[in-house]
Amino acid sequence: MKYYAKPLTNLINQLSKLPGIGGKTAQRLAFHILSMDEKDAIAIADAIVEGKRFMKYCSVCGNLTDQDPCSICSDATRDRKVVCVVESAKDVAAMERIREYNGLYHVLHGAISPMEGIGPEDINLKSLIVRLRENDIDEVILATNPNIEGEATAMYIARLIKPSGIKTTRIAHGIPVGGDLEYTDEITLTKAIEGRREL
Amino acid sequence: MKYYAKPLTNLINQLSKLPGIGGKTAQRLAFHILSMDEKDAIAIADAIVEGKRFMKYCSVCGNLTDQDPCSICSDATRDRKVVCVVESAKDVAAMERIREYNGLYHVLHGAISPMEGIGPEDINLKSLIVRLRENDIDEVILATNPNIEGEATAMYIARLIKPSGIKTTRIAHGIPVGGDLEYTDEITLTKAIEGRREL
Repeated sequence: MKYYAKPLTNLINQLSKLPGIGGKTAQRLAFHILSMDEKDAIAIADAIVEGKRFMKYCSVCGNLTDQDPCSICSDATRDRKVVCVVESAKDVAAMERIREYNGLYHVLHGAISPMEGIGPEDINLKSLIVRLRENDIDEVILATNPNIEGEATAMYIARLIKPSGIKTTRIAHGIPVGGDLEYTDEITLTKAIEGRREL
Repeated sequence: MKYYAKPLTNLINQLSKLPGIGGKTAQRLAFHILSMDEKDAIAIADAIVEGKRFMKYCSVCGNLTDQDPCSICSDATRDRKVVCVVESAKDVAAMERIREYNGLYHVLHGAISPMEGIGPEDINLKSLIVRLRENDIDEVILATNPNIEGEATAMYIARLIKPSGIKTTRIAHGIPVGGDLEYTDEITLTKAIEGRREL
């Protein structure tokens, strides 16, 4: 993009490194940033720098946090006997939003994926095993995503935990609320039938 | 978003101020930024700060530039007798990309829009008139956008320039190359007929 001065080209290039931001969008964002008040533009830059500086992974559960242990791990009112295993910190936020779950979390930062060369040692799994061994935990809820990698990861962890005798559960698969039988894919429908419950 | 620590919430809020970036996208971008190498994340923040610091509007033409006058205004090889009037700095880049135009520019930073309360004095118009008076200019090409505001602005400027005797032209409207007669709207088709040329 030789039609722009260097600082602008640089800004466009940097923005287009973000996921889902292509060249055109990056250009639009860059022009918008340059037209913003100095204060507001600097606030965005500061938020990035401070996010990077203050946000760490919790040494206990792996969640994104600005204190260690994170606010969930250090919350005395939560049920410390239940651990919900999720793939990412975003999933913790999704779980917290439902306000139904009051236990702890463990963030794997990924899922086992032989296709992408991600093995059990590449995700935050070893610390989960140590946690289960050193703490008095009754139940592990496996809430990895319901796709091939998530299922494989759940299976792997379930087998790993089995010898310890800790109860291991998997979140239910089925037709989403508001969904339509007609448009539900076969695998989900199969899971819904398999997981049927007596009323 | 009380499920996230403050620096993360702040980052999400700041990113969602950008145009076309909603809450979900801002969250995705924020998580991506936090998972980036420190160096790469800081590079984005620096690009914003430096873009804001070094990019200014050219005092002659109003184009975005890191030097004043801008590289186009100070380019001795360009035809200084033709000025192309555009709405935004993005339009300058669009014009430069075609490599056909070798004159100068004048960026209005908007268009006259009574609906939005933008009058002739709210755009970078006065400096154009001064420029035309103080320099020896043969032609003004009005390349504002072919919408209501752009047309009104072009008309207004044309009338303003008329007494000076400078040739004033408007870019052609018509069916875009690769377009389809069948799917062309009536106004564009009308303009295409009006603007027909002998072969």
